[in-house]
Amino acid sequence: MSKPLILVTNDDGITAPGLRTLIDVMRQLGDVFVVAPDSPQSSMGHAITLDSTLYSKKIRTAAESADVEEYSCSGTPADCVKLALQELLPRRPDICVSGINHGSNSSINVIYSGTMSAAVEAGIEGIPAIGFSLCDYNWEADFEPSRPFVKTIVSEALLHGIPNDVVLNVNIPKVAEGKIKGIKVCRQAKANWKEKFDKRTNPMGRDYYWLTGVFELLDKGEDTDEWALSQGYVSVVPTQFDLTAYHAIQDVNNWNFNER
Amino acid sequence: MSKPLILVTNDDGITAPGLRTLIDVMRQLGDVFVVAPDSPQSSMGHAITLDSTLYSKKIRTAAESADVEEYSCSGTPADCVKLALQELLPRRPDICVSGINHGSNSSINVIYSGTMSAAVEAGIEGIPAIGFSLCDYNWEADFEPSRPFVKTIVSEALLHGIPNDVVLNVNIPKVAEGKIKGIKVCRQAKANWKEKFDKRTNPMGRDYYWLTGVFELLDKGEDTDEWALSQGYVSVVPTQFDLTAYHAIQDVNNWNFNER
Repeated sequence: MSKPLILVTNDDGITAPGLRTLIDVMRQLGDVFVVAPDSPQSSMGHAITLDSTLYSKKIRTAAESADVEEYSCSGTPADCVKLALQELLPRRPDICVSGINHGSNSSINVIYSGTMSAAVEAGIEGIPAIGFSLCDYNWEADFEPSRPFVKTIVSEALLHGIPNDVVLNVNIPKVAEGKIKGIKVCRQAKANWKEKFDKRTNPMGRDYYWLTGVFELLDKGEDTDEWALSQGYVSVVPTQFDLTAYHAIQDVNNWNFNER
Repeated sequence: MSKPLILVTNDDGITAPGLRTLIDVMRQLGDVFVVAPDSPQSSMGHAITLDSTLYSKKIRTAAESADVEEYSCSGTPADCVKLALQELLPRRPDICVSGINHGSNSSINVIYSGTMSAAVEAGIEGIPAIGFSLCDYNWEADFEPSRPFVKTIVSEALLHGIPNDVVLNVNIPKVAEGKIKGIKVCRQAKANWKEKFDKRTNPMGRDYYWLTGVFELLDKGEDTDEWALSQGYVSVVPTQFDLTAYHAIQDVNNWNFNER
């Protein structure tokens, strides 16, 4: 039986240590094909490049070998997946994995996540897809404790498949090796960011802002990703791109649309 | 009773005719406060600006009057909403409307939509929010037929409120004045884009790509937004930002997470 073909991407860019870890773990499971942004694309959401050009470059690395091919791309994470599927891959991949992101994509962060947008893009194309994130924004974050969990989850996804029109959002707590308690399948916790704009004046005298904020959890449920992470578990949230709020259709149907 | 305060934004930028139409209609319903991108931000998805600075500028227009205030912002649509809510607005708005977008945001397009990301951002903050899009990409699109429907939908939303954690995705068919048949509450149709990359060579001899594609509808349901639009109706899809695929939790819970 031929080895699975695994498409690997991320949003922190081709040089990110989290991507390097993911490539390394995926080489244990199949042939690895990397298409990742040539520069960091964090908090890009599901942006795509329509009004400008896309470049892609075959990357030579010291680690290059028969089972890994690597390309960089000038676009967003979603662009990387589109370009990989249409132009670069030799055949349809068996799975697409994105990450490991430097920083959490749990709870409402999924909405802003370039890591997850790459996974969603693959999911829209009918390819099983998983986004991985470590809850540590540091570039020198320790990805070692993540390895066995990433391997288990991708192995199981290759074995069972992922339900149609669903992609997995996996977050890994920032705890020392051996301290992760296990894996929990969760729902997305309700939360938002309490924004604070740091207003400054530039050398030319013009005001500008930096966006900063504090994460505000609005959900005490013990079935949420935030709860699992706080207890030292890896969280797995099945995530969909049918955004219809079915429960609200009936409500809005009672509005009076005939008055104008 | 004081007039409602209406936050208006978009993703095509502060000069877009679709925004001008929306401002004009909203002035019939309340006090209007505009914070829109200073340049087009289409297909930005839910991007936010974390690694660079944001500028905002109070805009003077010929139409400026007591009931309209306008700012431009150097960021994405989601940035505009965050900046408006935290820094620019005199008080919490009663509703946020985004658009009218030049081009469809029905079906899977909602995922890539800057127009909807602005509405979702307001929704996350607990503010009733609606994204409006006209299924015509032309900058000179005719927004006249949209006016009464935009007014009706916003009036009803102000009257009834919008269910918690739900924002409305409204798409308007490209048909002549008087030919729109009415308003239908729908679910998001399943579809994707069949991408095609147009590969070219730049004057320096390097290959680059333009992303193009064809919309592929994968859903014959007559309860979808695509069906409603094809029949000449305005589509209203209640849209959520809890992306959990609840139906898939049980399935993934049956995976074996203990093997490593």
